[in-house]
Amino acid sequence: VPIREGRFEEPVGGAFARINPSISFDRRLFREDIAGSIAYARALGRLGVVSAREESAIVEGLRSIELEIGAGTFPFREEDEDIHMNIERRLLEKIGQAAAKLHTGRSRNEQIVLDERLYLFGVVDTLRDGLRALCKALANKAGENLTVVFPSYTHLRQAQLISLAHLFLAYVHALLRDVQRLEDFEKRLKVLPLGSGAAAGSSIGVDRELLMRELGFLSISRNSIDAVSTRDFIAEFEFVCTSIMVTLSRVAEDLIIYSSDEFGFLSLPDSLTTTSSLMPQKKNPDSLELVRGKSARVIGHLMALFTLMKGLPYAYDRDLQEDKEGLFDAVDTVLACVDVTAEVIEGLAVNRERVASALAAAGGFVYATDLADYLVLKGLPFREAHRTVGTIVRAAVEKNRPLERFSLEELRSFSPLIGKDVYGVFEPLRSVNSHDVPGGTAIGRIEEEMARIEKELG
Amino acid sequence: VPIREGRFEEPVGGAFARINPSISFDRRLFREDIAGSIAYARALGRLGVVSAREESAIVEGLRSIELEIGAGTFPFREEDEDIHMNIERRLLEKIGQAAAKLHTGRSRNEQIVLDERLYLFGVVDTLRDGLRALCKALANKAGENLTVVFPSYTHLRQAQLISLAHLFLAYVHALLRDVQRLEDFEKRLKVLPLGSGAAAGSSIGVDRELLMRELGFLSISRNSIDAVSTRDFIAEFEFVCTSIMVTLSRVAEDLIIYSSDEFGFLSLPDSLTTTSSLMPQKKNPDSLELVRGKSARVIGHLMALFTLMKGLPYAYDRDLQEDKEGLFDAVDTVLACVDVTAEVIEGLAVNRERVASALAAAGGFVYATDLADYLVLKGLPFREAHRTVGTIVRAAVEKNRPLERFSLEELRSFSPLIGKDVYGVFEPLRSVNSHDVPGGTAIGRIEEEMARIEKELG
Amino acid sequence: VPIREGRFEEPVGGAFARINPSISFDRRLFREDIAGSIAYARALGRLGVVSAREESAIVEGLRSIELEIGAGTFPFREEDEDIHMNIERRLLEKIGQAAAKLHTGRSRNEQIVLDERLYLFGVVDTLRDGLRALCKALANKAGENLTVVFPSYTHLRQAQLISLAHLFLAYVHALLRDVQRLEDFEKRLKVLPLGSGAAAGSSIGVDRELLMRELGFLSISRNSIDAVSTRDFIAEFEFVCTSIMVTLSRVAEDLIIYSSDEFGFLSLPDSLTTTSSLMPQKKNPDSLELVRGKSARVIGHLMALFTLMKGLPYAYDRDLQEDKEGLFDAVDTVLACVDVTAEVIEGLAVNRERVASALAAAGGFVYATDLADYLVLKGLPFREAHRTVGTIVRAAVEKNRPLERFSLEELRSFSPLIGKDVYGVFEPLRSVNSHDVPGGTAIGRIEEEMARIEKELG
Amino acid sequence: VPIREGRFEEPVGGAFARINPSISFDRRLFREDIAGSIAYARALGRLGVVSAREESAIVEGLRSIELEIGAGTFPFREEDEDIHMNIERRLLEKIGQAAAKLHTGRSRNEQIVLDERLYLFGVVDTLRDGLRALCKALANKAGENLTVVFPSYTHLRQAQLISLAHLFLAYVHALLRDVQRLEDFEKRLKVLPLGSGAAAGSSIGVDRELLMRELGFLSISRNSIDAVSTRDFIAEFEFVCTSIMVTLSRVAEDLIIYSSDEFGFLSLPDSLTTTSSLMPQKKNPDSLELVRGKSARVIGHLMALFTLMKGLPYAYDRDLQEDKEGLFDAVDTVLACVDVTAEVIEGLAVNRERVASALAAAGGFVYATDLADYLVLKGLPFREAHRTVGTIVRAAVEKNRPLERFSLEELRSFSPLIGKDVYGVFEPLRSVNSHDVPGGTAIGRIEEEMARIEKELG
Repeated sequence: VPIREGRFEEPVGGAFARINPSISFDRRLFREDIAGSIAYARALGRLGVVSAREESAIVEGLRSIELEIGAGTFPFREEDEDIHMNIERRLLEKIGQAAAKLHTGRSRNEQIVLDERLYLFGVVDTLRDGLRALCKALANKAGENLTVVFPSYTHLRQAQLISLAHLFLAYVHALLRDVQRLEDFEKRLKVLPLGSGAAAGSSIGVDRELLMRELGFLSISRNSIDAVSTRDFIAEFEFVCTSIMVTLSRVAEDLIIYSSDEFGFLSLPDSLTTTSSLMPQKKNPDSLELVRGKSARVIGHLMALFTLMKGLPYAYDRDLQEDKEGLFDAVDTVLACVDVTAEVIEGLAVNRERVASALAAAGGFVYATDLADYLVLKGLPFREAHRTVGTIVRAAVEKNRPLERFSLEELRSFSPLIGKDVYGVFEPLRSVNSHDVPGGTAIGRIEEEMARIEKELG
Repeated sequence: VPIREGRFEEPVGGAFARINPSISFDRRLFREDIAGSIAYARALGRLGVVSAREESAIVEGLRSIELEIGAGTFPFREEDEDIHMNIERRLLEKIGQAAAKLHTGRSRNEQIVLDERLYLFGVVDTLRDGLRALCKALANKAGENLTVVFPSYTHLRQAQLISLAHLFLAYVHALLRDVQRLEDFEKRLKVLPLGSGAAAGSSIGVDRELLMRELGFLSISRNSIDAVSTRDFIAEFEFVCTSIMVTLSRVAEDLIIYSSDEFGFLSLPDSLTTTSSLMPQKKNPDSLELVRGKSARVIGHLMALFTLMKGLPYAYDRDLQEDKEGLFDAVDTVLACVDVTAEVIEGLAVNRERVASALAAAGGFVYATDLADYLVLKGLPFREAHRTVGTIVRAAVEKNRPLERFSLEELRSFSPLIGKDVYGVFEPLRSVNSHDVPGGTAIGRIEEEMARIEKELG
Repeated sequence: VPIREGRFEEPVGGAFARINPSISFDRRLFREDIAGSIAYARALGRLGVVSAREESAIVEGLRSIELEIGAGTFPFREEDEDIHMNIERRLLEKIGQAAAKLHTGRSRNEQIVLDERLYLFGVVDTLRDGLRALCKALANKAGENLTVVFPSYTHLRQAQLISLAHLFLAYVHALLRDVQRLEDFEKRLKVLPLGSGAAAGSSIGVDRELLMRELGFLSISRNSIDAVSTRDFIAEFEFVCTSIMVTLSRVAEDLIIYSSDEFGFLSLPDSLTTTSSLMPQKKNPDSLELVRGKSARVIGHLMALFTLMKGLPYAYDRDLQEDKEGLFDAVDTVLACVDVTAEVIEGLAVNRERVASALAAAGGFVYATDLADYLVLKGLPFREAHRTVGTIVRAAVEKNRPLERFSLEELRSFSPLIGKDVYGVFEPLRSVNSHDVPGGTAIGRIEEEMARIEKELG
Repeated sequence: VPIREGRFEEPVGGAFARINPSISFDRRLFREDIAGSIAYARALGRLGVVSAREESAIVEGLRSIELEIGAGTFPFREEDEDIHMNIERRLLEKIGQAAAKLHTGRSRNEQIVLDERLYLFGVVDTLRDGLRALCKALANKAGENLTVVFPSYTHLRQAQLISLAHLFLAYVHALLRDVQRLEDFEKRLKVLPLGSGAAAGSSIGVDRELLMRELGFLSISRNSIDAVSTRDFIAEFEFVCTSIMVTLSRVAEDLIIYSSDEFGFLSLPDSLTTTSSLMPQKKNPDSLELVRGKSARVIGHLMALFTLMKGLPYAYDRDLQEDKEGLFDAVDTVLACVDVTAEVIEGLAVNRERVASALAAAGGFVYATDLADYLVLKGLPFREAHRTVGTIVRAAVEKNRPLERFSLEELRSFSPLIGKDVYGVFEPLRSVNSHDVPGGTAIGRIEEEMARIEKELG
């Protein structure tokens, strides 16, 4: 019997019946809903609201419902609106009157946020594991390519020489901050809302501290209105998802470009590419493009959630039903994309000869800052050294001649400070190792950093 | 046999296989995909690429596939990635080799935008019909309440008296602009992309003008790269959906507030409300709250689409697969919400006594502008009249006395221009009818406007 | 004297005084505000609300204020809140009591949307001119590069050969749709709100048709509530801006990649690049990166506007003040970015040798579809031809040998249908010209399209 | 001399010169830029790159520049692009050659994020102080209204009785979570990027640990590419701003509705309202509407930032210049809105008689859950009690009679469990105090919570 029947004569009808039920998506929360109800039934038992026998009947009934849903045999009904009422109705069918006591002093307003929070407990763990695995894949790939000299880019133009490992570790650091954010988030996530009632707090004096411990929360909410009204925990989680996805989209962009025919530095394994239905030669980096593209939907979900909450009375309003589909999709998306990116990283081949020949063909411009540093060591103030080298580069562009092919005489015509030791500048590993500060690309510094990361990833 | 098998040894695997297939959602386009393929098969027949017999076999095969999918018996396969390849594979199973010719000179890059455009043909019609029905419901409700004097609000504070009809017609005008936008949109929607190939244009000289006519398009795309790269037609459609949803969210906000216990002006039918699982007295306007809330997801989809396209090479990139789920959800949402809003409007009861007593209790402040107008007619410049009435209102607030209960003497102490005809100002219908310009709330003007709307809605 | 003084004792104070005034940004609308007030003064003159002499005084006073503001000598005051009251106050200082009549029967609620609409009249014209100039630059660049054979890309991987002109024209088509959108928009923009009062319509019977003609509108609003409540015209304009910016961001991405050292197909003029403060060799495509980056803020403004309006009562609410800064910034951004992109296109150099040598080095894979087409002409069903060529490509990858260097015998081992005429396939212009349909890249088709575009651009 | 002059012949020109310079907005960072440069000059001194005399000259030169900018006499130049080069150029004018050494081994890529991070140090402190002050204002208002019985709302319909204090404290809890988020954020904010160079790390071995301590950072960045590429610290800060603004928008919505004429529960002081230019009676809650409306722009800035970063190569790209204007505007907005909300709370008057009479007029429906609880205590399972009370409410609606006016006989016709003690249910404070759990609205529980909050706010 739908709960509306006491209050209203008419059932829900028409187009409204198309948008009113949430059971098509909130059924995903069935395990959490049942866990919450079991804990609640026990609390009711302790209060004497249900007898020991009733408590057992409820708990066992709920467990058998969990099995039914898991097995796909549960008879979901749209007229029962949501997962809470579907389970309550089924429980009534199974155990009779005791079921009618389960909702004593409880509201769906608190139940739904309880379910959502419990759901995120597991998601946060899975996501953290996924991120750690991705970081390990990146660290491994860094280890394999520690001495591969690679151009760093700014503005998609070659900037300075780095170890390729340095690039992979840059991604690791970005992702580790999101792991840290998830950890900070947990103390706000694991706040028990149960006992808040519809808005004013439980009227039956349920033991909230005990519920907290039984359900694995760290603290209890301190204001019942706030507990049922806020969705900031979902926003914060989606923010972290968005942060991760934006990083992955940037990694994807890098790898798509570096694996293009024209760059040719990296290759993807066939299993992570697709071909064209028309053009048989194509080997397309669809895995990376999908990761990049999917960042947009997660940004969109975060945006939609804030837009949803903006200007809502600080209360439970039905609009809040709209928090779930975006969340579920964000979860699915970020988990899949973290895993796909890890696969890509693991499968990535580095075409060392292409990298080396590209550097050789680049006219030595990537050493321009080294050359300026050389002039600084010879006593020229940096800003003048910068201008001098700028002039040399301009000449090299005009003559279409690599820097290292300029004769000593020619170079000295730009600055008399230049000596024949200048040619030592054009040495890849020397250049890489000149960035010898914590966080710099010098090989020794990277090794230190890798050790630190390894320790952190456990 | 998946199309990748010639080019690659390995199948798609791992986590990538979770995000690569689009068949779970693009199957929704099966009718359009088949209609496009039938037209294409005929074009191939005219070119002699397929024989008349092969053409028939293809067309009949496709028709039987359409029936299979409609009946739910079609064997979808994830390894065939999408709706196009699922249908092609099934066609091969059904009719053999002729099926292998269907994709001659055609690309999925053009096929998917053909399908999406055809899909929107029908959606636009349905949406327009829905909007017209909603406008009719609003116009009817306006007609029923033509002489109900109602406070207009600005800043959620009573502003001036209007006919309640005027408010309902305001919504109509907003929605009719979106109907007009849909009409403008159609000339950009009904541009045939087929014949664009993967990027460079058909290499088999397919007759695009004929395809255009057969498939109901109005023109053909004039650049093959643009045809497969742009998604601006989806963005424009989602923009119109967003515009509609934002209007509906504002209507919902109005009606939620006006039907609160404290305002009490309007009542919703029971069938469009729900009750609480805990609080048996509740009659909640969930239908309106869901409409308001669902505006957020449509805004989010539009945002996600633009974010998706931003900075993408002007080409087909796999990221574009992400255009569909948001579109489908926007379509479902806007169609449902237009219908739900129409139901709400139809079922809305106006509590005329509550409106009248609220106006009576409001201290006559809603006539303040009328009073200023009165003073202007007596010769006071408007800005001074405004200040004078402001002072009277301040006094009324301080004395907690309605404006119309001030004695003539008292009123004259604020301005000697006030005569005893001033009490005629406090007359509801007179106030309403004083706004006698096109677009104003005077009853006669509304009647004119209703006639015009009725004609426009047909 | 601020208008609040009659009604309230206290002035606005504290932090509220930091956000209440809008004069710092709405002063930008001074010309439109004055034009509207001049027309309104004339309308008041026709009604006899002001005498002929007063009308002249008002009109001349307003004109001298326009000069003052233009000259930067106008004494703006925060306590007068906005541009409307600043001008009214100044008019009072200049001409005395007549000024106090100007606001008779008028509301700032209608005045602000009048100003915004008038402001957009000019912006739409300027933007359309800018888009046309950009399209001409693209068409010119297309004309210069008609016979430059270029790889088209999908998934940032070489797809099929095109004329480079075809790519530039793709951008033109995208932009012309936005020109068309602006034209459609104008009929919704040029709807006169004046005469709507605060919400209920003018109470003095102002002649709205005459105001419409004098101010250059095409029609009048038909509902006063709707006229002051809607901001959909701003949303629609920002939507078109967003559409343009997204296209420009995609053009920018293409050009940044194509002008990288590794691609090397295009070069930017020095004047549109910058160097690094540290790395003297750098020549960075900042002009394009800024265009790409600035698309984000315009997307953000559109979303902010929709979020602003979502769930607002359908009325004037002060929240609507927030519509302006985003609009102004969107206008400045899109106008600048259209011009910058035109400069980039004009200054772009095509490195034809690099393009040609890149194609030569690419192993002939870009002809794979041509090869499949060849097999189809020999009688192989397309899907089999596709698989056969896929196998050839796989072999070519494994042997690291270009397709065109396979001997006839080797090729025939994949398909006996291959004859020695196969080598004719590997011919750039032939390949380009094989896409001979309207919208295809065949040179003759592009020439037709260029003529059509030239005509359209006038 | 602009830094481009060595490398390029041509200056920046045309429309590009309109968007290239950032000095119009990044000048806001001058104090941070100078603080960073002073620390860097000292580090150069320790390395012997500059002499002790040069170091002093640089430090003093920078300090005098700081004074110039503070005094508004600094000659900003657009051709120097940004705050960094404007200061460097001015330093050269002031102290000559020593200035040319300041940029040794440093890049603007690291300098800008150093400045942004330092800037946020102060902002975070100010924002935290503002939030605490707002929380105190709310706690004070709660204290004043501890025993004011107020209806809680869900779905904008009366739900259960609460202490009005409970509502104010709900807002406090939401805001305290954002204070906590700011604290978590600081450990990610206070990570020194200086020493990262353009991308590869400092090449002069600058002492980063010392710089960290001197500039007040907590740790140093561990990867130079990551340090210059990420903007996640700005995203995280804007996320917290958005979270705050969304809460404030909800508070604003509550207060706008509760202070409407029809609700009448709260009144705003005149100084936080405005009147209408046309309607002299108006007292509009503009302060709250602006706070609500301004939430939209902050949401928009966050989305723009994510859209900006999405798909960017993981490197410094010029697009990142676009991170600043949104950030500055978000900072200004959130700081102002927190203060305005505090003013509103402080000035809020509670109309206790209106609240009481509204409750008296509401038909006792707000006691429906209490009535169900009563039946549960009498032994009825909750779900049946719920249905029974629903039926009573339906009867009360039909008869238009308050619940408490039903005779015992009438009530017993719905359930024989009802006894004459039932009338004790309809007692406001009893109802409030029945929610006696931690976080519940019972007066004693609120007092406990207020003590806890007071302690937390210090």
